[in-house]
Amino acid sequence: MGIKEMDIKLKEFVTGKAMDARAGARDLLRAGTDKKNLLLIKMARALLSGTEELIKENARDLEAARGKGLSKAMTDRLTLNEKRIKEMACGLEEVAALPDPVGEVLHLRQRPNGMQVGRMRVPIGVIGIIYEARPNVTADATALCLKAGNAVVLRGGSEAINSNRAIVSILRQEAKKEGFHEGIINFIDIPEREAVIEMLKLEGLIDLIIPRGGEGLIRAVVENSRIPVLKHYKGVCHVFVDRDADPLMAREICLNAKVQRPGTCNAMETMLVDEEIAQGFLPVVLKAMEEKGVAVKGDKKTMDIYPGAQEASEEDYYKEYLDLILNVRVVAGMDEAMEHIAKYGSSHSDSIVTMNYEKAMRFLREVDSAAVFVNASTRLNDGGQFGLGAEIGISTDKIHARGPMGLEELTCTKFIVLGSGQIRQ
Amino acid sequence: MGIKEMDIKLKEFVTGKAMDARAGARDLLRAGTDKKNLLLIKMARALLSGTEELIKENARDLEAARGKGLSKAMTDRLTLNEKRIKEMACGLEEVAALPDPVGEVLHLRQRPNGMQVGRMRVPIGVIGIIYEARPNVTADATALCLKAGNAVVLRGGSEAINSNRAIVSILRQEAKKEGFHEGIINFIDIPEREAVIEMLKLEGLIDLIIPRGGEGLIRAVVENSRIPVLKHYKGVCHVFVDRDADPLMAREICLNAKVQRPGTCNAMETMLVDEEIAQGFLPVVLKAMEEKGVAVKGDKKTMDIYPGAQEASEEDYYKEYLDLILNVRVVAGMDEAMEHIAKYGSSHSDSIVTMNYEKAMRFLREVDSAAVFVNASTRLNDGGQFGLGAEIGISTDKIHARGPMGLEELTCTKFIVLGSGQIRQ
Repeated sequence: MGIKEMDIKLKEFVTGKAMDARAGARDLLRAGTDKKNLLLIKMARALLSGTEELIKENARDLEAARGKGLSKAMTDRLTLNEKRIKEMACGLEEVAALPDPVGEVLHLRQRPNGMQVGRMRVPIGVIGIIYEARPNVTADATALCLKAGNAVVLRGGSEAINSNRAIVSILRQEAKKEGFHEGIINFIDIPEREAVIEMLKLEGLIDLIIPRGGEGLIRAVVENSRIPVLKHYKGVCHVFVDRDADPLMAREICLNAKVQRPGTCNAMETMLVDEEIAQGFLPVVLKAMEEKGVAVKGDKKTMDIYPGAQEASEEDYYKEYLDLILNVRVVAGMDEAMEHIAKYGSSHSDSIVTMNYEKAMRFLREVDSAAVFVNASTRLNDGGQFGLGAEIGISTDKIHARGPMGLEELTCTKFIVLGSGQIRQ
Repeated sequence: MGIKEMDIKLKEFVTGKAMDARAGARDLLRAGTDKKNLLLIKMARALLSGTEELIKENARDLEAARGKGLSKAMTDRLTLNEKRIKEMACGLEEVAALPDPVGEVLHLRQRPNGMQVGRMRVPIGVIGIIYEARPNVTADATALCLKAGNAVVLRGGSEAINSNRAIVSILRQEAKKEGFHEGIINFIDIPEREAVIEMLKLEGLIDLIIPRGGEGLIRAVVENSRIPVLKHYKGVCHVFVDRDADPLMAREICLNAKVQRPGTCNAMETMLVDEEIAQGFLPVVLKAMEEKGVAVKGDKKTMDIYPGAQEASEEDYYKEYLDLILNVRVVAGMDEAMEHIAKYGSSHSDSIVTMNYEKAMRFLREVDSAAVFVNASTRLNDGGQFGLGAEIGISTDKIHARGPMGLEELTCTKFIVLGSGQIRQ
């Protein structure tokens, strides 16, 4: 088969999956909450019953991964075992227990001509999920999309192809048994990268793309997509300790933001400290940081106060370390702190520690980040902590969804009009 | 200057405008409602005072247009006269009078750990507007964006370049006088098409692109943009006359949807009629349509009942006529009507006429369009009619905004957290 012929086949294959998904989406539009919840619970049970099969298929992926020399971390994420399969099943049940966002009617109001106009929350339609070799995402993302009434086109990292195929096969069987169109779940089970490129061209068939993975994957998706993309680039998060902060609270918040789980996107990368209190505050908090294994980088003023700090370069302030490394900068006050955040930050999670009401309100209003905190750790930026239930990711976009994305963010609204014969004058 | 050198200059020029806009956006983040409203009112007055100058600059565009043989309709849209300048000024004043969406806090709720979590409505940042040679859009779109706290990068059709430059110059002067950063309004005043392509690559500097114009313009923007695009493709709108319709109401709604202003996106293109009532309903309504100058195309059943109808082809059902032409199709009932709408429609505005409660509710739920009507004309799909105030367009997208887009759709929300020392456990 020539290359061109292969391209056409590939295009047909991917388009076929997306068209199945559209048919599935129409079916889901008609499905009520009870029916969707029952399906999710049946799926959870089926995954548990399929444990043996899933582990067997996963072993094939792990075997192939060993041959390719995958890193330890990647191999770990690729691995399915009894515990992880139980977690997937629990995840499905938890999503079943969440309230259904679909059908809610917002702001139904009577217009002067007597018609009632409101917005009804409805599914988006078909959602494409592009992710790395993490089989659990296959079940987790599918559950959230289905609950919100959307069909999925899944494209997981090729290293997990056998595991994903097995999971999808189980989920689709349950869909069929429960009387759903099988097109509600689709999986692009060919390893070629070109399949993703074709998928990203299917504007009109796929309504939204959610990529989950590293910055490289996400940039490649944005570059090639004609379909709207909801994305998460990176988290360069800040805590600004104001001169009017409670120093004990500030220390607890900064330590938590840095060390509680440094590898996450909402961990603090740079601590900004008001010069008025730097002399008293820095030695105490930085000593505590170092005791927790944090390497401290700082500007000149920080180094003067705390000689243990290494010098931070201009580039360091842009970095998402995801590690026990902290930048520290002494600033003249709130304005300089906000300028620093606007310049070097990634608009993810930023916090001020202060007891000054006016500064707290100004920080909330003027810092342009997905989540802005007063007197709380940036680590709290999370769907569960915010009360959204399970989340499909954190958006650093401003369009459609910003911050943690729960079920509501997987829906849109349409206008509904209840009339009694109204016409346009 | 070589082509490559020109490309680099062009890129620098466009990037410079977008960077100015970012600085402008930061300034607008701090501007309160009163200050923004005063600016809009001052701008309105300045446009009126500049009438002579604007008409002079517009004359240069019109002169050039005559040379290029622009169509009469395009020349009309390009023309500025005293009346149109007054309308632009009024538009600015109307936007000043609308409520400011920025700063609203939604769903502020206490979490179990005592922190308050909510969402604050904030500006999107920098909005790029790409439009055809209609100088009034320059003022109208700018007003809506500024009121919602966003800076703009404007790119109007090159035929209007002198008019647009004059309008922007007046608006920027007022911005400066009122103490705003001039970067709140930017205009790409070079005619090269490549300037648009460069603009669409500026992800990170421009947050959102809103193209306004024909389908060709919009497709080209979507094809080339790395920035999210809010768009309006086309309106292939339907009215389904159910067997349980009030025939008089159905006739009024169908006539209004077709003839009140056939050139608009929310005018009906296809009327679907339940076979149970077709025999009685069609002759009356189609005669009335013909009296209004409507050419009727129909399926076989329609032609049997109403011999005046020409045969509609399969392709006709996909067409947005924007003219006094109507497709008519006799359907077996509601299911066939909804299938027709799903297949041929553009998910814009669709209406059912019925007195049957169950069918009305099902149509509302299952028809996947930006606006779904019961017993009302599709022509009512409009920001003003829906009570949103002025609109920047109608979105046929599902992401971020769907249907008429008012000020709220030009904002996003961020999460805000009011804490008292909370950390992640």
